[in-house]
Amino acid sequence: MLGTMMDVPLTIPPLLDRAARLFPWREIVSRNADRSIHRTTYADLRRRAWALAQALVRSGLRPGDRVATLMWNHSVHVEAYFGVPAAAGVVHTLNLRLHPDQLAWIAEDGGARWLLVDETLLPLYEKWRDRARFDRVLVVSSPGQRPPVGYESYEDFLATASGQLEPPLLHELDACGLCYTSGTTGEPKGVAYTHRSTVLHCLTIATPDVCGIGHRETLLPVVPMFHVNAWGLPYAAVMTGAKLVLPGPHLDPVSLLELFETERVTLTAGVPSIWMGILDALDRAPARWKLQRMRMIVGGSAAPESMIRAFDRHGHDMIHAWGMTETSPVGTMSRLAIDLDDAPDDERLRLRATQGLPVPLVDVRIVGDDGEAPWDGASLGELHVRGPWVASSYYKGARDPDRFAGDGWLRTGDVAAIDPRGYVKLADRTRDLIKSGGEWISSVDLENALMGHPAVREACVVAVPHPKWGERPLAVVVLRDGGQTTAGELRAHIAPRFVSFWLPDAFAFVSEIPKTSAGKFLKSAVRKQFPSWSWGGTSGVNDDAP
Amino acid sequence: MLGTMMDVPLTIPPLLDRAARLFPWREIVSRNADRSIHRTTYADLRRRAWALAQALVRSGLRPGDRVATLMWNHSVHVEAYFGVPAAAGVVHTLNLRLHPDQLAWIAEDGGARWLLVDETLLPLYEKWRDRARFDRVLVVSSPGQRPPVGYESYEDFLATASGQLEPPLLHELDACGLCYTSGTTGEPKGVAYTHRSTVLHCLTIATPDVCGIGHRETLLPVVPMFHVNAWGLPYAAVMTGAKLVLPGPHLDPVSLLELFETERVTLTAGVPSIWMGILDALDRAPARWKLQRMRMIVGGSAAPESMIRAFDRHGHDMIHAWGMTETSPVGTMSRLAIDLDDAPDDERLRLRATQGLPVPLVDVRIVGDDGEAPWDGASLGELHVRGPWVASSYYKGARDPDRFAGDGWLRTGDVAAIDPRGYVKLADRTRDLIKSGGEWISSVDLENALMGHPAVREACVVAVPHPKWGERPLAVVVLRDGGQTTAGELRAHIAPRFVSFWLPDAFAFVSEIPKTSAGKFLKSAVRKQFPSWSWGGTSGVNDDAP
Repeated sequence: MLGTMMDVPLTIPPLLDRAARLFPWREIVSRNADRSIHRTTYADLRRRAWALAQALVRSGLRPGDRVATLMWNHSVHVEAYFGVPAAAGVVHTLNLRLHPDQLAWIAEDGGARWLLVDETLLPLYEKWRDRARFDRVLVVSSPGQRPPVGYESYEDFLATASGQLEPPLLHELDACGLCYTSGTTGEPKGVAYTHRSTVLHCLTIATPDVCGIGHRETLLPVVPMFHVNAWGLPYAAVMTGAKLVLPGPHLDPVSLLELFETERVTLTAGVPSIWMGILDALDRAPARWKLQRMRMIVGGSAAPESMIRAFDRHGHDMIHAWGMTETSPVGTMSRLAIDLDDAPDDERLRLRATQGLPVPLVDVRIVGDDGEAPWDGASLGELHVRGPWVASSYYKGARDPDRFAGDGWLRTGDVAAIDPRGYVKLADRTRDLIKSGGEWISSVDLENALMGHPAVREACVVAVPHPKWGERPLAVVVLRDGGQTTAGELRAHIAPRFVSFWLPDAFAFVSEIPKTSAGKFLKSAVRKQFPSWSWGGTSGVNDDAP
Repeated sequence: MLGTMMDVPLTIPPLLDRAARLFPWREIVSRNADRSIHRTTYADLRRRAWALAQALVRSGLRPGDRVATLMWNHSVHVEAYFGVPAAAGVVHTLNLRLHPDQLAWIAEDGGARWLLVDETLLPLYEKWRDRARFDRVLVVSSPGQRPPVGYESYEDFLATASGQLEPPLLHELDACGLCYTSGTTGEPKGVAYTHRSTVLHCLTIATPDVCGIGHRETLLPVVPMFHVNAWGLPYAAVMTGAKLVLPGPHLDPVSLLELFETERVTLTAGVPSIWMGILDALDRAPARWKLQRMRMIVGGSAAPESMIRAFDRHGHDMIHAWGMTETSPVGTMSRLAIDLDDAPDDERLRLRATQGLPVPLVDVRIVGDDGEAPWDGASLGELHVRGPWVASSYYKGARDPDRFAGDGWLRTGDVAAIDPRGYVKLADRTRDLIKSGGEWISSVDLENALMGHPAVREACVVAVPHPKWGERPLAVVVLRDGGQTTAGELRAHIAPRFVSFWLPDAFAFVSEIPKTSAGKFLKSAVRKQFPSWSWGGTSGVNDDAP
C-alpha cells in the first residue's frame, strides 16, 4: 500500500531560498586574502548564487556537468555550493594542498569544464595549467580588484546573468558534489554526493545530539570547503539560517582567535592540529581574547584526551567526530549519554575522546577475521558503515571489493572496537598497526598518551623493522615551544597505561611531522624517514617485548 | 549524472534499533488506567515491538494490511507505532473522542483486520462492534490483568512470537500510518503517511529551531497518539533516545503536573485547552509543583498572547506551532529570530503568538482572489502548503480540487497573512470569517483578545445573521472559576485593539463551548446554538457597524 504524501524531491536550492526569505539579513562574514573583512547576507548570497547558476547555463552547462573550485573558505565558495547544483551541475572541489601532479590528475578525472579559482591561488594553478582542460577559468579576486591580464573575472561572468533563475528540474539522486579522497595510498578516488544524501546529512547534523545547528548559532568551519564540503556545515548553516564566518586563507591561530572573538563564534570545527595551535596561543595569553563559550567539533584524526581537558579549562566544549570523504562525512559523534552525568571525570573524558556514537540513520559494525565482532570494547575489527549518505562505489570506478563488503557496507580501512554503549574507538588504519612478535600494538593509543605530556606538541608512532620481533614502535616527537623532555621521561610518563611490550623502544625528536592535505599524520612518509633503526646495545630497547 | 551514494531507504524500524542499541536503559514511563505508573525501556520496547511484528505476520498480515488502534498514550501504543510498520503493516489510529457512528465509518473505510484496544475503551468499542469487521480484537489490559471473558489478550498474542524478527523488505514510499481528519465538515478523510515522510518529519522536528529533541530531553506528549501520531513526537523521541512520559487516560491538570514534576519533564506538547487548565492549576497553587523549565509546544488552535505571557511568568517557554492531519503535522513553528532579541516585549509576544515560520523543507504561500498574495502581514489569502510530509491526496479518494491546487499544493482551508519576516498568522477557517456589511471580520483575533481578560477562560466568536449588515459577531464566553464580568466591560476591554465595527454586538455567557475531538471550538455547533439573535433596541448593538 503506497502512502498519499507529496513527491517532493530532496534538493539543495530550497535550502538557500528559505534562508533568503526568512533570514535575508543574516550575515556571511569572510576574511579576504589581504586580511580585510567582507560581509554579505543570505539575501545577496541567493541573488549571486542564482546568477551563477544562470550564467553557467547560459555558457553551456548541461545537467551533470562538473564545475571545479580551487578556493579557500569564503562566501563565493558558498555561492558555488548552491549555484552550481541549482544549475543541475556538480561542484568538484579541488584540494589546494595537493601536489600539482595530483591536482592535474584529479581535475582531469573529474572532467570539469569550468574552474572557479581564487586569484591568490593562480600561482598554484599555473603549475598545472598546461595539463588542465577547462573551457573557462573564472578568477575570484578580492572585492574591488580585477584579475591579472589574460584571465576572466568571476564578477564579469556573474554580471552576464540577472539572477532570475528558471530552475531546472532536479532529481534527488542527481549528483551535486564531487570530492576526491586524500589518497594516502593508491590513486585518489571520487565520491559523488547526491542532492538527497546532502540534504539528509544536513538535517541530521543539525539535530541537537550531532552538531546542534539552529539559526542562533554563529558557525566558523575551519575545516576547508575543499575537503568533504567542510563537513557539510555550510549547507546546515544555510538550511537553518545560522551566521557563517569563513576564515579565507588565514588559518593561523591568531587570525582564527580574532574572528572567534569579533564575530562571537559559538560553533567551530577543524582537525586536531588546528586546535593544538589554538591551544598553544590560548595557553600563552589566556586573557587576550574574550570568547563566547564554543562547541569545537574535532575530527579528521584522533584528538588526545589532554587536548579535550585543556579546552575544558579554557571554557570550551570539544566534541569528537568521525567520518571520511566516503561518509559525507559525519558518521559518529561523541556525545556523553545522560546517564554518565555523574560518572568520574576520567571515565567521561575517556569516552569523549572516542569517535562516539553512530548518528541517526547510520549503522556501524566491526568485522574481524571471524566475522562480525561483539560490541565489548575489546574486540577489534575493521569498521564498516552503512547509511543514506555513505558511498556505495566511486566515481567512474568499479566497485572495489577492498572498499565494499559483499553486502554493500563501506569498509573504512579503520580498525576499531565498539564498547557496549556503542562508542566507537578507532585503533589504527589497518596498515598503521604495529605487529610485534605476533601481537598487535595500536600506534594511535600511544600517540594520544604521548601527546598528554606537557612538553609534547605532536607524537607519531610508526613501525620499524626489528630483527627479533618483526616490528617495533618508534615514537617521532615534536616538542611544544620551550618544551623539554627525554626519551626516558616520555617512556616513564606513559608506562602506567600500557603493557610493557607496547612501549616504544626508540624516540626521535623532530621539528615537524609530515601530514596529509587534511592534516593527518602521513605515516607512509614518516616510515620512509625512518626505514630502519639501529637496535644495537640496550639503549632504548625494551627487553620485555614479546 | 547520478551520484555514488548508497540506496538506503528511509524507514521506521532502524530508529528503534538505534534506541535499543545506544540507549537500552532509557525509560518509557506510562500512567496506567488505575493511575499507577508503568516503566519500560527501549531495550524492552524493541523486543516487544518486534514480537508484535512477528505475531502479526504469523497471524496473516500481508504488506500494506492495516492494524487499528483504539488506545490512550502509553508504551503499548508506541510498540504499535514501530511493530506494525516493522511487519510492513499500516497503523490506523482511531480517535476515541469520536461518535461511535463516526468510529464505525472510519474503521470500515480503513479496512483494518486487527484492532488493538485498551480494556478501558471496550465500552466504547462495544457501541459499534456490531458494525466492525476486524478478524482479531486484541485487548490491552493493565499490567498483570486479564481481559474480560470473550476477548483475546494482547499479551497472549505477543507471547506467540519470539521477538527474533526477520525484517521484511520495506520501501520508503510504503504507507506506515493512517489517520483521518477530524471531519468538522463532510466525511472524514484518511491520510496515509509513508516511511519516508515520517522519517523526514522526525529529523526535521528534532532540529533546534523546530522542537529541538536530543536524547537528554524528557518528552511528555499530551497530544493524543490517535491524533496525527502525537505530532510525530514519539518517533522523534525514539530516534534520538529521549525519555518518553505518557499520561494514559489521565489528562486532568493535576495528573499532568504530577508527571511533569516527578519525571522531570523538559518538553511537552498539547492544545490550548489543556494548557488553560494547567495554567489555572498553577495560578491557584504556584508553589505546589517543583517543575523543570519546560518548553511547551502549543498547536491545534490559536493560543492567546495572554496564555504565553502567563507561562513566561511561571518560568516556562510556550512555543506556538501550526499543522494539520494532512501535514504530519508540523508545518510552522514560532521561534523568535535572533535579531528580535532586543525588540520590545509586546512585539516579541505578538510574533510568538503567530503560527510562526515554515520549517525546513516546507513551503508556504497565501492565495487570494487575485492569485498569490504578498508577504506584507496584511494581505489575507488561503494558506497553501507543500513539502515531503504533506498529503497530495486522500486515502482511497480522488484528488479533491477543493483541497489541492492545480499545481499540487495543499489548500489548508485556513485564511492567513504572512508578514515580511515569514511569520504566518492564521485569521480564520474560511467558513469561520464573519462578513459584516461586505467587510471581513476575523473571529480568531477577537477570541484571542477576549481571552486576555482575566475573568475569561474561553471565548468563541461566531457569525449570526443580521437584518442590516448580513452577519454580525456574537461572542460566546466561558468564565474562569470565580471570574466576573459583563458584556460592556469585555467590549471596553478589547475596544482599543480593533476598529469599532469589528467589536461583537452581543455576548452570551455559557458554561461550556462545544469542541471537536482535537480540542478545537466546534463553531458549527456553536452557530447552531445561536441560530439568531434578537437585535431589537440598542442593547449591545454597535451602531458603527458598516
